[in-house]
Amino acid sequence: MTDGGFGSKLVEFTREYARMPQSAMITVDEARTRILAGLHPMPAEIVALANAWNRVTAEPVLARLTQPPSDVSAMDGYALRAIDGGLRAALRVIGAAPAGHPFEGAVGTGQTVRLFTGSVVPAGADAILLQEDAERLGDTVVVTEAVVAGRHIRRAGQDFSKGDAVIAAGRRITARDVGLAAAANHPWLSVHRKPRVAILATGDEIAMPGEPIPSGGIVSSNSHALAALVRAMGGEPTVLPVAKDTTEAIAAVADQAGGFDLLVTTGGASVGDHDLVLSGLRTRGLVVDFWQVAMRPGKPLLFGQMGSVPVLGLPGNPVSAMVCAALFLLPALALMQGLPAGPPPTVSAILGAPVKANDRRADHLRATVTVDERGRVVVTPFPVQDSAMLRRLASADALVLRAPHAPALPAGAEVTVIRLDTSGI
Amino acid sequence: MTDGGFGSKLVEFTREYARMPQSAMITVDEARTRILAGLHPMPAEIVALANAWNRVTAEPVLARLTQPPSDVSAMDGYALRAIDGGLRAALRVIGAAPAGHPFEGAVGTGQTVRLFTGSVVPAGADAILLQEDAERLGDTVVVTEAVVAGRHIRRAGQDFSKGDAVIAAGRRITARDVGLAAAANHPWLSVHRKPRVAILATGDEIAMPGEPIPSGGIVSSNSHALAALVRAMGGEPTVLPVAKDTTEAIAAVADQAGGFDLLVTTGGASVGDHDLVLSGLRTRGLVVDFWQVAMRPGKPLLFGQMGSVPVLGLPGNPVSAMVCAALFLLPALALMQGLPAGPPPTVSAILGAPVKANDRRADHLRATVTVDERGRVVVTPFPVQDSAMLRRLASADALVLRAPHAPALPAGAEVTVIRLDTSGI
Repeated sequence: MTDGGFGSKLVEFTREYARMPQSAMITVDEARTRILAGLHPMPAEIVALANAWNRVTAEPVLARLTQPPSDVSAMDGYALRAIDGGLRAALRVIGAAPAGHPFEGAVGTGQTVRLFTGSVVPAGADAILLQEDAERLGDTVVVTEAVVAGRHIRRAGQDFSKGDAVIAAGRRITARDVGLAAAANHPWLSVHRKPRVAILATGDEIAMPGEPIPSGGIVSSNSHALAALVRAMGGEPTVLPVAKDTTEAIAAVADQAGGFDLLVTTGGASVGDHDLVLSGLRTRGLVVDFWQVAMRPGKPLLFGQMGSVPVLGLPGNPVSAMVCAALFLLPALALMQGLPAGPPPTVSAILGAPVKANDRRADHLRATVTVDERGRVVVTPFPVQDSAMLRRLASADALVLRAPHAPALPAGAEVTVIRLDTSGI
Repeated sequence: MTDGGFGSKLVEFTREYARMPQSAMITVDEARTRILAGLHPMPAEIVALANAWNRVTAEPVLARLTQPPSDVSAMDGYALRAIDGGLRAALRVIGAAPAGHPFEGAVGTGQTVRLFTGSVVPAGADAILLQEDAERLGDTVVVTEAVVAGRHIRRAGQDFSKGDAVIAAGRRITARDVGLAAAANHPWLSVHRKPRVAILATGDEIAMPGEPIPSGGIVSSNSHALAALVRAMGGEPTVLPVAKDTTEAIAAVADQAGGFDLLVTTGGASVGDHDLVLSGLRTRGLVVDFWQVAMRPGKPLLFGQMGSVPVLGLPGNPVSAMVCAALFLLPALALMQGLPAGPPPTVSAILGAPVKANDRRADHLRATVTVDERGRVVVTPFPVQDSAMLRRLASADALVLRAPHAPALPAGAEVTVIRLDTSGI
């Protein structure tokens, strides 16, 4: 038996590594900074307000009207002149102004108009008599609690005025923002286009779920998890066909990545990470930054540019792939959508168990989250952190960030974590 | 001028209220419990794995295979018999087993097989010699660090075994779960159907964004905000046409709600909340619980059943509508999707400013969130809490929960909050 051709690929792989002395290991932050520097926000597109939720505004949303447009009543009651609203005063009801049906006349001396919450305050009136402070008998109303001029009146423009930027640019649109944009009279919004992300998995051993599994093979999981992550983060994923482990096959699939905003690759793990991916994409013009990142789980990370398409190469190991995706792909997708560029959001938490001193690689401990009796977030790393355990990754609520050379910490110490349980990833 | 017919509606409205003495005011928790008791989880449907993200599993996902399916190498290196792996031992390389290409023979005495991460450990071998602990010269490998039997071998089933419930029922599917379900060989998943929610807004004064606004009118915002909230929470919203303020018009639009899983109404605010909605839906068989909930912002809440369709009536005020939606509609949608029923998720936070003692109505103060130098979440309520200020609601990061009769609290005190900024609502 022979190496079956893998020896020569190993040589190529080893040569790549030889160019990367251990001193070339860069930090997670540096890798992220270099990735973000190679990306740019997507241009704008117009979407219907009904489709704008969770998109990112490409420009400020300026109010097209003033809200409320006129002075309106904040309560159910009666509009009158404040001077007429002393205790036991009697007023004549000359009309009603339900919301949407403003009273067209003016309120004169001794007169009043029935109002409801949101009703326009009629001309002449400068006070509101609350319903519960009024005795009504036919067309007459008697004041049982003296009014105060201006009270219970919402002034025109109290919420916003025409021209106000009610939503800033670069904001992910919430349900409340949708309501606000509607109130500001916007049926359409200008948002950043969703980044279209092509996902390329490689490997002779990979089968799609439900399809025949070759001997020694496994079912593809990375592509599907990454596609879901891209969707969760507001991108538009496309899963390319699985490429076999040859330079030619990978190059052929890479040809389908033209026009995408980002190509994400995983694996090529048969003879180490990225070797075949690298040689395959190089035949299509890939210009590459090829790093070792001082992190765990995680292996060499590939970032580069293939023609106009940025390429992010993730490890083939499913746990490493998802952790690297959280650290690098998530910020990439944020930047491409017009959100501020930077590390993924972190929170402070309390260790539920001691952790050992760390070595020179930043660690990302998979952990469960509980809340203690004081309402504090407690993170407890799993005792075994094997990067092949996808089931354990799926059950993790958080990644505990351990800096290179971080000292041992006792239970109760404060640590910084990335929450997975509240992020959809 | 006359009441234009509103006098009679006011009488009807007042009569409704008369049936509700102040003692009938119920708590937020009781209202929520009664709403949840009137709802049930949606039945299951089958979706493609690629569409399963953020859906809720209707049954446990059982692994269809064992992962890894055989003992595999955790590292790049060589498979051998442990007894052959002493320091300076020389072994003959008889083949290679890249992932997906298992070595078909057996490893005999003095023999070794080239392996890579994920490669199946060949028959006969019980140890892995790491690549960095091996000197290779042609077809010979020399051991530079003695091996340990079993080390660097991932055992069959280490991640999961065939039949294991790798994802529980009633779980919202994350990107990691999608990867796990794929690895467990599931191309389809059984999930709870999305609740189809019809949204009915009423009001003569309401215009759709971009359409002509009647005199004294405002632009519809509630329907759009609620539709986005339903979508954010995993439901399928349908915005019904805006009904004019007549019993007949409301009844006619309500006829379109048959077959939906929930009808959500807002407003009817021209003569107080719910009166016209109530009389309109009653002509279509609405059986109603009609409450005053001891809360602010918020007004009487309607819950009932119209034929087979549960009906949740929210206030017409946009801020009240969204706060009530967070408190009642969000848990309703969770239950209908098969998630555990209960109040919306809360977290503990530190007050950034003092708050006054509360009265008998639970308050929900709109607040900003910052993180202090100790990493604690600090919430600072807006000084003005006017329930008509949609712009302010949109800029709120959290609702600070204030129980009925809660005492005044100084800055620095702990409070319970609902985070809005991380929820998509």
